[in-house]
Amino acid sequence: MIPTPPSHVALDLPPWLVENLERRSPVVHNDNEQQMAFVLEIAAENSRQGGGPFAAAVYGSGGELVSLGVNRVVPDSTPIAHAEIMAIAAAGQALGTWDVRSRGEFTLVSSTEPCAMCMGAVPWAGVRSLVIGARDEDARAVGFDEGNKPADWREHLAAVGITVTRDLLRDEAAKILLDYASSGAPIYNGSTA
Amino acid sequence: MIPTPPSHVALDLPPWLVENLERRSPVVHNDNEQQMAFVLEIAAENSRQGGGPFAAAVYGSGGELVSLGVNRVVPDSTPIAHAEIMAIAAAGQALGTWDVRSRGEFTLVSSTEPCAMCMGAVPWAGVRSLVIGARDEDARAVGFDEGNKPADWREHLAAVGITVTRDLLRDEAAKILLDYASSGAPIYNGSTA
Repeated sequence: MIPTPPSHVALDLPPWLVENLERRSPVVHNDNEQQMAFVLEIAAENSRQGGGPFAAAVYGSGGELVSLGVNRVVPDSTPIAHAEIMAIAAAGQALGTWDVRSRGEFTLVSSTEPCAMCMGAVPWAGVRSLVIGARDEDARAVGFDEGNKPADWREHLAAVGITVTRDLLRDEAAKILLDYASSGAPIYNGSTA
Repeated sequence: MIPTPPSHVALDLPPWLVENLERRSPVVHNDNEQQMAFVLEIAAENSRQGGGPFAAAVYGSGGELVSLGVNRVVPDSTPIAHAEIMAIAAAGQALGTWDVRSRGEFTLVSSTEPCAMCMGAVPWAGVRSLVIGARDEDARAVGFDEGNKPADWREHLAAVGITVTRDLLRDEAAKILLDYASSGAPIYNGSTA
């Protein structure tokens, strides 16, 4: 028995996060450090709630939270449900355009350096800046596979008008990855899956 | 007025495609060429129906169609709604696992060589093979931005156990891109958006 292919894929925030956002909305964080602290709080809670230890957010130039994503790969059976993919998709739908760049200067804040897929998505997102907490090597150190990224990814983003800030609250961000790995939760990746 | 960030993102197949699949289901194509011919038929129809000229499908080892994706970037205001991302997400949800590799040997059939984002997603998809119609340069020739892919992407996929077949029905696949561009439909990409 071969089922009909799915006509609908849902990338949903988990209920605890929806409640959290409804309670706190509107969320405004005026600088990148406040934004990263919020994203890290969500990443840590997501890993306690059964998701992956990753979160990402799109902020507008007034510091308003436009969209948020968390890693839902394992609980939602969705290999592409990385935090950045969810945040970028939600930003487009929130703003009502694929061309986010036409609506202002947006920033993608990511708890860990995006994997190869998510890094490839950054230019499609229409953001003008990317702010990163933990480095690629912090994720690899606990066993996550970051994929095959071009060595020149920072130069390429600069060439298409996207500025990159790294290492913002890196120690705090790396600790979330380490705590997740220490808890014995699944470390999934492409090469050993 | 700052709205609450979206709690739900939908990656949906368009109604014409849902009807098409319901009419034809179950879809079984026993070899890669039949699979590619089907994917190209869907890509061409998607571009006539207001989507991008791209489609992708995940097939099981018995030739059964597990999932299908089409480019919905513009009509759905979703920068990451590329055909491969939709097909990979739907395959995981159809099979009920992020770890598609544990369920058998699956193939991702893509009408055009995946962009940098989608190429990064291929190892996360859990497929054992990737079958490609048009080349990267066919997409770039009509103005699409394929992003910043690592030069060694084929070697990297081979190293993680994924075989690659290129140029299957390439002329037919490239013609779909050319017809789309000739129609004056929007050519969207990251660097000029």
